[in-house]
Amino acid sequence: MVNTEKFIESAIKEIRGKAEGKKVVMALSGGVDSSVCAELAKRAIGENLVSIYVDTGLMRKGETERIKSLFSDINLDVVDAGDEFIDALRGVSDPEVKRKIIGEKFIRIFEREAKKTGAAYLLQGTIYPDVIESEGGIKSHHNVGGLPYDIAFEGLIEPLIDLYKDEVRDVAGALELPLEIQHRMPFPGPGLAVRCVGEITEEKIEIVREANAIAEEELVEKFKPWQCLAAVIGLGTGVKGDVRLHGWIVSVRAVYSRDAMTADPVEVPWETLHRMATRITSEIPGVSRVVYDITPKPPATIEYE
Amino acid sequence: MVNTEKFIESAIKEIRGKAEGKKVVMALSGGVDSSVCAELAKRAIGENLVSIYVDTGLMRKGETERIKSLFSDINLDVVDAGDEFIDALRGVSDPEVKRKIIGEKFIRIFEREAKKTGAAYLLQGTIYPDVIESEGGIKSHHNVGGLPYDIAFEGLIEPLIDLYKDEVRDVAGALELPLEIQHRMPFPGPGLAVRCVGEITEEKIEIVREANAIAEEELVEKFKPWQCLAAVIGLGTGVKGDVRLHGWIVSVRAVYSRDAMTADPVEVPWETLHRMATRITSEIPGVSRVVYDITPKPPATIEYE
Repeated sequence: MVNTEKFIESAIKEIRGKAEGKKVVMALSGGVDSSVCAELAKRAIGENLVSIYVDTGLMRKGETERIKSLFSDINLDVVDAGDEFIDALRGVSDPEVKRKIIGEKFIRIFEREAKKTGAAYLLQGTIYPDVIESEGGIKSHHNVGGLPYDIAFEGLIEPLIDLYKDEVRDVAGALELPLEIQHRMPFPGPGLAVRCVGEITEEKIEIVREANAIAEEELVEKFKPWQCLAAVIGLGTGVKGDVRLHGWIVSVRAVYSRDAMTADPVEVPWETLHRMATRITSEIPGVSRVVYDITPKPPATIEYE
Repeated sequence: MVNTEKFIESAIKEIRGKAEGKKVVMALSGGVDSSVCAELAKRAIGENLVSIYVDTGLMRKGETERIKSLFSDINLDVVDAGDEFIDALRGVSDPEVKRKIIGEKFIRIFEREAKKTGAAYLLQGTIYPDVIESEGGIKSHHNVGGLPYDIAFEGLIEPLIDLYKDEVRDVAGALELPLEIQHRMPFPGPGLAVRCVGEITEEKIEIVREANAIAEEELVEKFKPWQCLAAVIGLGTGVKGDVRLHGWIVSVRAVYSRDAMTADPVEVPWETLHRMATRITSEIPGVSRVVYDITPKPPATIEYE
C-alpha cells in the first residue's frame, strides 16, 4: 500500500497541475471512489470543481436524499432523469444492451449538464480493478465513472487509477470522509437495473429497491460484507392464503472480497436467512420466494447482469 | 393413523370387490403412492392388474431403468413418449399452460395404451392432501395420477384417498416394498418440467436432470428431506477464465414437511452448500450460478411452477 498521506499530497498536486486553473467537472455517484475524487478535487481546486449527480431512477432507497445531504458543501448539480432512463429501457432484456443503453443515456445527460458548466477537464474515479476487468472484456460498462471520451474535454484526470478498493477506503479515512462513505459498498453504475434480471419495469425496480433495503438492514452492519444486494431473478409459483399465485423470486447475495476480482459468499446464519425471507415476502407485495446465492466469483459475477 | 394391517386387508377387499373379476389398469409413476396401489392390486387381483409407465422424457436421471427393474414382477407396459412431450411443450412458458399440456398429453397417451388392455376399471393413488389442494385451486394437475375421467372406464378405484403421505409410507413398509420406494421423495407428475421455469428446451431439461442428481446425492441420505430438488430459474452473468458469459441460474431446494401443505427449508451446512455449488457449476456446462431456496411454504410452493 502507498502511504496515504503522500498519496493525497501528490494527487492534489496532480489535479491542480492538470486543471491549469480551469473548471473541472465530475460525475458524483456517492460511492467511495467518486467521493474521494470529489474531496481531493475540492482541496485541490475548490470552487473550480463542479459535481454532477444524475438520479437515474435506478438508485437505492433514499440514495438521492443521502447524497444531497452528504455533499452539501460542494458545487453539486442534481439531475432528475428517472423517466428518461425507464423510457429508454422499455422492452430491453439483454444485459449487455441494457448496460449500453444506460451507459449512453448517462453520457448524453452528463454531457448536456457538463457543457453548461464550461468545464475543460473531466475528473474520474477509475480504480485499478476497473482497468483490468475492462481490458479482459469482463464487463462493458460497469462503473458510471467509466465514461467514453468522444465528449469534448481537453483532458481526463484519473487520480485513483493505481489504487485497489481497500486503498481507496484508506484514503477516504485519511481524508476524514464520513464513515458512511468510507465503508459504503460498491454499487454498480447501471444501478438497480443490473439487479432486475431481464426486462426492466417500474414494478421490478420498486421490488428490488425495497428488497435491497431489507438485505442491507439485515446484513451490512452485522456481517460487514464487501457487497450485499438483492436481485429479482424470475417468476415462480407461490401460495398465499389458499390461492396459488405467480410471484417474483428475489435472490440475496452477500460476499466477502478483497478487490472484486474474486469473491466468496458470506456464511449468513440461518436465523438471519429465515428473518430475511420472511421480511422480503411479507413486506414486498408480489414476492413469493427468496433464495440465497451460494456461488463464489468465479464462476458467478457479484452482480446478476 | 389407521392400523396398517387392517387398512391393507380392507383395501385389498375393496379393490377385489370393485373390480368384479374384470381387468384394472393403472398409471405407475414409481412414487410411493402408485407403488403401494400396484402392490395392493397385485395382491387383490393378480394378473388382472396392468400397470402403464409413461416415460415423458421429463423423468429424473436413471428413473426409467430403476422402475423397470423394481417392478419386474408385475404386468408393466413402458411407453417411451419423450419426443411427444417435448414437441407439445415447445414455445410454452406459462406454468399453468405447461401443466395442462402435460396433463392432457399424459391422459391421451395413457388412454391410448389403456384401451389396448381392455380394462374396465382405473386404479389411482390419489391421497388426501391431493383432494384438499385440488379443491382449494392450489394446483391444477400436480399428480399424473390425477387423471380426469372422460376416459371410458366403468369406474374409478382410489384406495388411498383417506391417507396422508406418511401413512402411505407406513403402508409401504407393512407391504415390505423396497426401502427405496418407501422413502422415495414426492416427484411431481409433470416431472422436471416444473423445475424448468419458463419455456422448456432440451438444454434446460438436461441441465435440470443433472442438477437434480447432484442435489439428491448431496442431500437425500445426509439430511433425509421430505423433498429436495433443483430448478433452472433464469439466466445471470458469470465469468469463466477471463470471459464474461450469460449462464443459467440453478436453485436448490430441500424442505422438511409433514404433508406437503406446509414446508420449511432444510438448514443445510455451509460445507455442503459450497460443495454443491462447486459441483453444479463445474460438472454442468452452461451453469454459472447456484442459489439455495430459503423460503418456507407458504408463501413459496415446494416446486417452482
